Amino acid sequence: MNQKFEIPSRLLMGPGPSNVPSSVLEALSSPTIGHLDPAFLEVMDQVQEMLRAVLLTDNPFTIAVSGTGSAAMEAAVDNLVEPGDRVIVGVNGVFGTRLVDMAGRAGAEVEAIEADWGTPIPVEAIEAALKRNSVSMVMLVHGETSTGVMQPIEGVGDLCHEHGAMLLLDCVTSLAGVPVRIDDWGVDVCYSGAQKCLSVPPGVSPLTFSERALEKLENRGSKVASWYLDMTMIRNYWGEKRAYHHTAPINMVYALHEGLRLILEEGLENRWDRHRRHAAALQAGLQAVGWEPFVDEAWRLHPLTTIRPPAGVDEKEFRGRLLQEHDIEIGAGLGPLAGEVVRVGLMGASSSPESVLRFLSATESLTGAVSGVATNAAEQLLNRQEA
Amino acid sequence: MNQKFEIPSRLLMGPGPSNVPSSVLEALSSPTIGHLDPAFLEVMDQVQEMLRAVLLTDNPFTIAVSGTGSAAMEAAVDNLVEPGDRVIVGVNGVFGTRLVDMAGRAGAEVEAIEADWGTPIPVEAIEAALKRNSVSMVMLVHGETSTGVMQPIEGVGDLCHEHGAMLLLDCVTSLAGVPVRIDDWGVDVCYSGAQKCLSVPPGVSPLTFSERALEKLENRGSKVASWYLDMTMIRNYWGEKRAYHHTAPINMVYALHEGLRLILEEGLENRWDRHRRHAAALQAGLQAVGWEPFVDEAWRLHPLTTIRPPAGVDEKEFRGRLLQEHDIEIGAGLGPLAGEVVRVGLMGASSSPESVLRFLSATESLTGAVSGVATNAAEQLLNRQEA
Repeated sequence: MNQKFEIPSRLLMGPGPSNVPSSVLEALSSPTIGHLDPAFLEVMDQVQEMLRAVLLTDNPFTIAVSGTGSAAMEAAVDNLVEPGDRVIVGVNGVFGTRLVDMAGRAGAEVEAIEADWGTPIPVEAIEAALKRNSVSMVMLVHGETSTGVMQPIEGVGDLCHEHGAMLLLDCVTSLAGVPVRIDDWGVDVCYSGAQKCLSVPPGVSPLTFSERALEKLENRGSKVASWYLDMTMIRNYWGEKRAYHHTAPINMVYALHEGLRLILEEGLENRWDRHRRHAAALQAGLQAVGWEPFVDEAWRLHPLTTIRPPAGVDEKEFRGRLLQEHDIEIGAGLGPLAGEVVRVGLMGASSSPESVLRFLSATESLTGAVSGVATNAAEQLLNRQEA
Repeated sequence: MNQKFEIPSRLLMGPGPSNVPSSVLEALSSPTIGHLDPAFLEVMDQVQEMLRAVLLTDNPFTIAVSGTGSAAMEAAVDNLVEPGDRVIVGVNGVFGTRLVDMAGRAGAEVEAIEADWGTPIPVEAIEAALKRNSVSMVMLVHGETSTGVMQPIEGVGDLCHEHGAMLLLDCVTSLAGVPVRIDDWGVDVCYSGAQKCLSVPPGVSPLTFSERALEKLENRGSKVASWYLDMTMIRNYWGEKRAYHHTAPINMVYALHEGLRLILEEGLENRWDRHRRHAAALQAGLQAVGWEPFVDEAWRLHPLTTIRPPAGVDEKEFRGRLLQEHDIEIGAGLGPLAGEVVRVGLMGASSSPESVLRFLSATESLTGAVSGVATNAAEQLLNRQEA
């Protein structure tokens, strides 16, 4: 005790956090100032403006929640669900399951629409459920971090609205890694996390509400269960009144500012394309040495690849040696996928040709594959993409 | 937009945040690694050990909550109050009022024991309330940040236990600034904030539960309302199982590690004494130019001084010019004290002779006091303390 800690240098290719650019760490360590200091309020305003640009929304209520992605999830659910409300939740992985749990705690009557892990929720199933019962909200996970599936969303917003329901979308792992178009898609509530494709350390999380969602919030008959996440008060701190509610995580907001600035500097389309290209190269490399994709190409979530190792590779030992001998972190399978697949993230700053090649080269050496087979396959694809 | 932000250099003498030492900012900006990385788990273990040393407790359940002080307050209340529980809350300022609100949201039947703002809750009133009704918990604010009052605690723990109640203590502004002795005092639940006397940026918050509190948690008949703050699950992440719950705010935990290390390096007694001496010097200086203390000396909270400006000083204009012309932040009065008092913090790294003298010198110049009167009074006391 009483020693300074030491942090090893890791290549972060798990399900998040991703590697954080040095300018974001630099912003993070700017001097702390007061949460009502005019200079900080100006940073908050710019964060709100940049969040809207990254979320492709004009929603005035677009803020950063003072906690990690699950806090933003809870803020979305707790503020917009009232005891007795009926909601539909798409469940095809850990995070849909978490939404069911949270909505239940908020007092909702929850109808879960299940799909096999590794596949999206069929839109027809959502439609059928909307026709069966009147519900106040449909909750879907856009990028399922436990399976690597991307949920198709186009048309779902209109479908919900036609049936008088709002659409909540979990964009924790999708935002800034694949197209997310809040206004075009008619999404009423969306949250994300900092440590995935935004490449900001965890601790502050984007949240946006549409006008429809704000109306629901304003007409609540009961207090929000959580004081800390009560947006009826927090909106007065992020809004014009600047009324103190709780002390914001000031340095985390600095980091988010710089992370968003880098995203807009790169351009959303370029960033989406970068995530797509490197995920494809990773797949090409791993498939060349016998790894088997878990998710159909049509639904693959580019920032997170779930893949089965070939026979003879012990995934737990592989992950352990990858971390200890190569300083590369990847993720284990969760729930029914434990021991079956590994999860390899290429998110934000971690999504680069160097990450792909370093990981594949380490994989060749750890699994006894012929040296160069995986890396060459990936490199050829990267070169073709370049051309 | 798309510009890097600029943060002015401020002397933070408000009700928090306090100035953050450079080594804490440096720790904060260490590279982000995974929340299950063995190197990070080691940092967490050390944080727990140092938190116990600073809280003067042997409680195994001693962790850092993934949010600011109000999140830790909500974690304390939500996990240990069940719908229908009867609780007593001492209310003599904003934070007692907040506890009433949170306990109510958690479904408690709340009996508020009120005292005038600026005075502590009389122990006799707590005893009388305990005799009237059987309650599960007594909630008290140790350092009321809205008034600058320190609540006497000795003997209160025993009193609660004799009546079968637990004692919750809000130490947001007191921890590491004045004596806080969790085990000696028989406190069952205590939380604090990072940005007060710990001088760590806001975003991560100490929380400790006694065995009695853990027993209550384990025997709950209902789920904790908040998933994000549900300690029945989170204890498995901080404990031996290391089960993933939510992604911890990794870099904030780094910063807390370094903040705690600095506190233990200084020594708790030395740190308490430092806060006492500088608060006394501040009082001496301000009283020499006609400012009037709001709180009786017996109950003054050294880290936060509430004081009335002399006639003719517009407190709002004073605060504004102090910030704009001298880069010094202090706090406004809250609630019934708005416009009546200002709140001057000397917390953690901000509690220094230099802070006291720079603030007093600026005060002399902004209020038309004779130059040197306040600073000399403070300096003489500082010199006597030194001798």
